[in-house]
Amino acid sequence: MKSPVDLESMRHTLSHVLAAAVTKLYKDAKFGIGPAIDDGFYYDIDFGTTKISDADLAKIEKEMHKIVAQNLPMVKRLSSKSDALDWARDNKQDYKIELIEELPEKEEISFYDLGDIFTDLCKGPHVENTNDIGVFKLTRVAGAYWRGDEKREMLTRIYGVAFETQEELDAYLKRQEEAKNRDHRKLGKELDLFCFSNLVGAGLPLFTPRGTELRELMANYSLSLRGREGFKKVWTPHITKTDLYKTSGHYAKFGDELFMVHSQVNGEDFAMKPMNCPHHTQIFASRPRTYKEMPVRYMEATTDYRDEKTGELGGLSRVRSLTQDDSHVFCRKDQIKEEVARLVNIVKELYTTVGMQKLRARLSYRSDEDKYLGDKKLWEMAQNQIKQAAIDNGLDYFEQEGEAAFYGPKIDFMAEDAIGREHQLATIQLDFVMPERFELEFTNEKGEKERPVMIHHATLGSIERFLSVFIEHTGGWFPFWCAPEQVRILTVNDKVSDYVSEITKILDDIMLDKPLKYNELRYTVDESADSLGKKIKRATELKIPAVLIVGPKDAEGKEVSVRLRDKEEKVKLKDLAKYLCKLS
Amino acid sequence: MKSPVDLESMRHTLSHVLAAAVTKLYKDAKFGIGPAIDDGFYYDIDFGTTKISDADLAKIEKEMHKIVAQNLPMVKRLSSKSDALDWARDNKQDYKIELIEELPEKEEISFYDLGDIFTDLCKGPHVENTNDIGVFKLTRVAGAYWRGDEKREMLTRIYGVAFETQEELDAYLKRQEEAKNRDHRKLGKELDLFCFSNLVGAGLPLFTPRGTELRELMANYSLSLRGREGFKKVWTPHITKTDLYKTSGHYAKFGDELFMVHSQVNGEDFAMKPMNCPHHTQIFASRPRTYKEMPVRYMEATTDYRDEKTGELGGLSRVRSLTQDDSHVFCRKDQIKEEVARLVNIVKELYTTVGMQKLRARLSYRSDEDKYLGDKKLWEMAQNQIKQAAIDNGLDYFEQEGEAAFYGPKIDFMAEDAIGREHQLATIQLDFVMPERFELEFTNEKGEKERPVMIHHATLGSIERFLSVFIEHTGGWFPFWCAPEQVRILTVNDKVSDYVSEITKILDDIMLDKPLKYNELRYTVDESADSLGKKIKRATELKIPAVLIVGPKDAEGKEVSVRLRDKEEKVKLKDLAKYLCKLS
Repeated sequence: MKSPVDLESMRHTLSHVLAAAVTKLYKDAKFGIGPAIDDGFYYDIDFGTTKISDADLAKIEKEMHKIVAQNLPMVKRLSSKSDALDWARDNKQDYKIELIEELPEKEEISFYDLGDIFTDLCKGPHVENTNDIGVFKLTRVAGAYWRGDEKREMLTRIYGVAFETQEELDAYLKRQEEAKNRDHRKLGKELDLFCFSNLVGAGLPLFTPRGTELRELMANYSLSLRGREGFKKVWTPHITKTDLYKTSGHYAKFGDELFMVHSQVNGEDFAMKPMNCPHHTQIFASRPRTYKEMPVRYMEATTDYRDEKTGELGGLSRVRSLTQDDSHVFCRKDQIKEEVARLVNIVKELYTTVGMQKLRARLSYRSDEDKYLGDKKLWEMAQNQIKQAAIDNGLDYFEQEGEAAFYGPKIDFMAEDAIGREHQLATIQLDFVMPERFELEFTNEKGEKERPVMIHHATLGSIERFLSVFIEHTGGWFPFWCAPEQVRILTVNDKVSDYVSEITKILDDIMLDKPLKYNELRYTVDESADSLGKKIKRATELKIPAVLIVGPKDAEGKEVSVRLRDKEEKVKLKDLAKYLCKLS
Repeated sequence: MKSPVDLESMRHTLSHVLAAAVTKLYKDAKFGIGPAIDDGFYYDIDFGTTKISDADLAKIEKEMHKIVAQNLPMVKRLSSKSDALDWARDNKQDYKIELIEELPEKEEISFYDLGDIFTDLCKGPHVENTNDIGVFKLTRVAGAYWRGDEKREMLTRIYGVAFETQEELDAYLKRQEEAKNRDHRKLGKELDLFCFSNLVGAGLPLFTPRGTELRELMANYSLSLRGREGFKKVWTPHITKTDLYKTSGHYAKFGDELFMVHSQVNGEDFAMKPMNCPHHTQIFASRPRTYKEMPVRYMEATTDYRDEKTGELGGLSRVRSLTQDDSHVFCRKDQIKEEVARLVNIVKELYTTVGMQKLRARLSYRSDEDKYLGDKKLWEMAQNQIKQAAIDNGLDYFEQEGEAAFYGPKIDFMAEDAIGREHQLATIQLDFVMPERFELEFTNEKGEKERPVMIHHATLGSIERFLSVFIEHTGGWFPFWCAPEQVRILTVNDKVSDYVSEITKILDDIMLDKPLKYNELRYTVDESADSLGKKIKRATELKIPAVLIVGPKDAEGKEVSVRLRDKEEKVKLKDLAKYLCKLS
């Protein structure tokens, strides 16, 4: 039960146990699909006219415990298609009929019997016996369209979680509770960071001044790290003729997922860009290049548009307008290792700065399959260079064959947040295909035309998605350098306005230089007639890192009360600048 | 002949003279339309199978001079529709037939007789006699679709220019020649600022690193002036459901000019934003507002998409992807003057900085027509506030009734460039309608809900269009502070690399603080083995403001040769930083 596969088998078996329990309680239930998922399992069920809510879960869970306690074996059994159909028809399992009908005529179809109490169409794998099952809990009920199709039946999805031990389950539930408090959608509203409008549409966030400050600071920081390494900003439009994607090959693969743009004036068709690489190739190709200027390094924080299903949109985690801190290196084949190392270091520096220094890197290589494009020797050389860069830079890495993109090997980074969740954010991807398709070239030392290699990289990934993680990681208590409002002065009464001017004169001169250069202090003054208590409450709700409370006595003593998240102390006015600059 | 109207009449009459001359030389010519335009006139003519080129203009011009010399009167004459049609049919003027057929049945139709040699359908106005005509010149031949419709006949357009005096004509032609040398499309390529790609499409420029540097410096400078005045950056997506424009009223007016976006995944329809005001209202409306936080000031440098006709696109002057340095103030009615004054000052400061300090302002007011929306008293009060702001801030202004937008009065700024051309760039527009349509409100001192006024403003206007003007205004010799590459070091031979390091150490510490803060020096080093002559040529072609030439003798004497656009001098290394910071 130690390996992840076993955990997955156990969770998968639990979805069958769930179905068995439901069958016992609701005779006419019809089943869709019931897979294992991260942390647990679910089953999509048609309860007919019966309405199922969270209140029904205890009853079902009790029934599941009874079944597990019987130590029932899970046994695989093969059947012909016609027998399988008979089974489904006999049991009035309409959804299973539909699934079976789509299978090839001659294929042997796999079933699993849970003891003699429940049978299900299933490929497995499963645990051998229900006594291999650890602890579990049903968590919630949701609606789900059959096969994800809005035009089909709406089924009831019952979710559960499962772990090997009670401690793991408890830790998980605690983490879930903690995550709920940190939910970036809730904090986004409370901290006035972003909003949505029904008139603008789902998945299209609008950023308020505070949220814009935050996103710009993060984007600028990310770009500044690459700027230091010779990357130059470029600018490209958000739409293009589809010719660009026909040439790049994206149109054939993803053409039906593009947001299509229609010109009513000229009758022309465009697409919104879902990525920036094809645009960037056009700047590289806009004039002849020689080996002397290689590598050419472009970067752009620009918004891409991806047509996600409405039901899958949520806060900033998945949006239609995603701003990538994107970059592309065009380099010689012998420059791959150095360029990858450069990017690895940038990733390490950024994630250390934001407090997610626990990074794992997955090196994804090709397998022997035919789907990979480009010369095999080139792949091998590139994979070696990537691995060497990972070793040289002390990455915590693991390798996976067959996980590469069709156009080249890659490194994906998984960053762990404050409550132990892993998020895939940064990526470094080699590309042998796009330079070929766009016929990119430079003149080498021998005067010959040579094809460059492209390296795709985003450090934050999508800024919106990064922010969704970062807001939950920090719980809205942003590090001092990137808090939208870093300092707020609260006056105790109206006798201190001269002293407030003295303080703001000091604040006006404060500029942080790390991790981002030229970061002028962002502060406000609350001189309203409201009570101090009310003012403190407002500042705390906004999670402003440093609140300066100023009364007549402070003015007399030339000091201020500084209220931080975890403490409050008196600071002399002459020490204030230094004090604030040291906050993190 | 002093007023602009007379100049226009004279140019209009010349289009008839042109048509008369063409009729004499080409019996079967059929005429489209022939209006007066800025600086001159044109006529669209169908020459049948005869090909007309610039080489034919001298002959036509000679014939025109003969006609003008006859001192022929221009006489207006009214006719019924059926007589007008008879005239057009008798003369086989198919295009005129089409125009006349579209006129209302009972309307008297206006003709002009040029002496007894040429008659044309025309509303006028014209000069009374050809002896009122000054000097003119036919300039070029172009193709033009009949009625601007790509599916109709391609006609030949003959352009001419006309002025009162020979001096004016000469000055104009000289300016044209000068403008040709400064053409931003030519310079954009030579200076490697931007490019176009056939795969991306017309009107969709891509900015190279140099061009991106330039556009970011200008945009950041523009935004920094407003940031100083309390404007906060916001961020909004580039698409929206059309509901937003249905509510704002734009959909009814401009719905068929929008770039429509179609979701293939969900079947939903969106539009690309052609402006940002409706998006910004949604941020204002995202939470309750009180009088205490008014005015609320948002700004955003973001790209809007406008569906221009392919034939009208040209370089950066007219693009489909236009990035506005846009802003919106939401204020109380009694704050209009102060807010307008704030913006007027920003406009003056920016255009002085870029060397286009000669600004004229047009104050556009409502007339008595019904088309203006909003309370008439509010209009009057607002117009008074605008005028007072113009007077208080010493603007060179003129007033025009009936030129206001339907939603409020406005100020448009005309800036004169280095060769005397005026460009309309910045604008300040009041808006009483959008707050109404989106039901925006704030709580006033009395606790009542009150409607704010909106003020739209862009300082550069569209960054792309501004750059087209700025590149031609400077001829590509950008002011030192905003040159993409400010300094280039050229080595005389390979003996000076240590000394170059000494110099770059100094350059690394240089930061300009005006007009834009934290403007780090942008320099490169050309240490290639090429001859000094070749290196100088390259740096000059790129119009780099300061070129530092470094040889062994300079190293010995701890100095450098600084080559500027207009002079070359030796500067001691210890004085170099100060010297460069003083360049403008």
